[in-house]
Amino acid sequence: MKIVESSHEAYAHVHHLRCDQQKIGLVPTMGALHQGHLSLVERSQAECDVTAVTIFVNPTQFGPHEDYGRYPRTLEADLECLSQRSVDLVFVPQQPALYPAGYSTYVEPPAEAELWEGQCRPGHFRGVLSVVLKLFQILPATVAYFGQKDFQQLTVIRRMAEDFNLPIRVQGCETVRDDDGLALSSRNRYLSAEQREAALSLWKSLRWVEQAVAEGQRDVANLEQTMQQKLYDAGAEKIDYARIVDRESLASLSAVDRPSVALIAAYVGKTRLIDNLLLDAPGPPDH
Amino acid sequence: MKIVESSHEAYAHVHHLRCDQQKIGLVPTMGALHQGHLSLVERSQAECDVTAVTIFVNPTQFGPHEDYGRYPRTLEADLECLSQRSVDLVFVPQQPALYPAGYSTYVEPPAEAELWEGQCRPGHFRGVLSVVLKLFQILPATVAYFGQKDFQQLTVIRRMAEDFNLPIRVQGCETVRDDDGLALSSRNRYLSAEQREAALSLWKSLRWVEQAVAEGQRDVANLEQTMQQKLYDAGAEKIDYARIVDRESLASLSAVDRPSVALIAAYVGKTRLIDNLLLDAPGPPDH
Repeated sequence: MKIVESSHEAYAHVHHLRCDQQKIGLVPTMGALHQGHLSLVERSQAECDVTAVTIFVNPTQFGPHEDYGRYPRTLEADLECLSQRSVDLVFVPQQPALYPAGYSTYVEPPAEAELWEGQCRPGHFRGVLSVVLKLFQILPATVAYFGQKDFQQLTVIRRMAEDFNLPIRVQGCETVRDDDGLALSSRNRYLSAEQREAALSLWKSLRWVEQAVAEGQRDVANLEQTMQQKLYDAGAEKIDYARIVDRESLASLSAVDRPSVALIAAYVGKTRLIDNLLLDAPGPPDH
Repeated sequence: MKIVESSHEAYAHVHHLRCDQQKIGLVPTMGALHQGHLSLVERSQAECDVTAVTIFVNPTQFGPHEDYGRYPRTLEADLECLSQRSVDLVFVPQQPALYPAGYSTYVEPPAEAELWEGQCRPGHFRGVLSVVLKLFQILPATVAYFGQKDFQQLTVIRRMAEDFNLPIRVQGCETVRDDDGLALSSRNRYLSAEQREAALSLWKSLRWVEQAVAEGQRDVANLEQTMQQKLYDAGAEKIDYARIVDRESLASLSAVDRPSVALIAAYVGKTRLIDNLLLDAPGPPDH
């Protein structure tokens, strides 16, 4: 496994492979790797000739009062884990290499970034898209893998790739969950045993919505109200949003009459958790 | 000469050449080609194996009251001219191909874009950088050539390329002038014979500043005041700015004590013209 700190070296290596007709999979991460990340690695290894992983806790996507400083950093364990899986290349840049003095160009996120996470975390997607664009330039891969757990992130990265004509395919991958349904997240390690139980509130209310829609409920206002109540009942302490939106545009809906997605961001203690679930468009009414 | 409308075809062609170890020069233009553009083409042909030119009047860099609608479009003559010079590839995309419905991701320009053109033409550099980034992705060239006449544009493109780790070299090229000093511009064709004479005011006042600095004048406030007076005296009707600034950061200066550049934007009739001149840092004072 090749470990590279230098952007130029990383570019030369991946560009050479791409010119060599190799299919290159890229898995950008902030480290603190868990089975969710590893499922992206496995998917890349199954589909590509070469797999490159990046580990970089990107400062520009954290707000001033967020957890950049205490975000878990477990580089040694991460590298060990990737080495065991025979990942080909790991890019671990230093912060000043990606953001040298005078750095000031950013990506202005697309319309899909305005609501939900965009509203709760101003500047978040600007930081995410800027670093993802940079990584796509440094490691000119064929396809990049992102978890569907960050559904809105996946949507805006896909839109950026399309709008900017980036020569890369953006592949979303299914959320990996613990046996009880909790979506894996590097931030889960902030949770006490009791909080971990309360964190299940997100998954429970998503499953409730899925079931309600399957049973024929269509009214989004009603569904959202119950979903929020179920979140509180099951232990969420503060809800940033719990909404059912259009799966493409992420715009609000009044009825679940098209491919949709339920999006939740909520706090358990001081830990902010997100999760989501695709809701299938119901078939036409029976006559 | 290959003429390509499709982004995918252009990418495939240029990517293949780049993988083939060819040095590819890119000359992005808005058409209405003049000797200024052609000097970029010639430079590319002298330095590279393959030269690609793009012709696209980019709507997103024009303000709502600017001349997008009447910007000169001379595609047939442009292609003839490039064909005569044996340019290898010309990319002539349709507008909806570069800006399809739903397009909404942009480049947020760097600090160097805030003043001067950035202030007079809000959104201009956002549009310029967005389309340049797109063209750099569609035509992954080795080096891109831009005229120094648009000095601030060259500065912000260079900064974007650096900040976003774009694998391309940005090469500035000297301004091409008519015999009397008027910087070539597609917008010069808006000028009447009388206005063309008045348009020389930009070059005359730049030459005056150069001479004054060579003679030992250092005080920027004084120099700018006289430069502006000379502009009006020689026929400029409205001045957007006429400033002497730091050559790297484009920030204001109080004294010409480092590599600097004099930047002018002024109107002759309804035509907005820009020009600039590098001012060399004076040597140490004699003792």
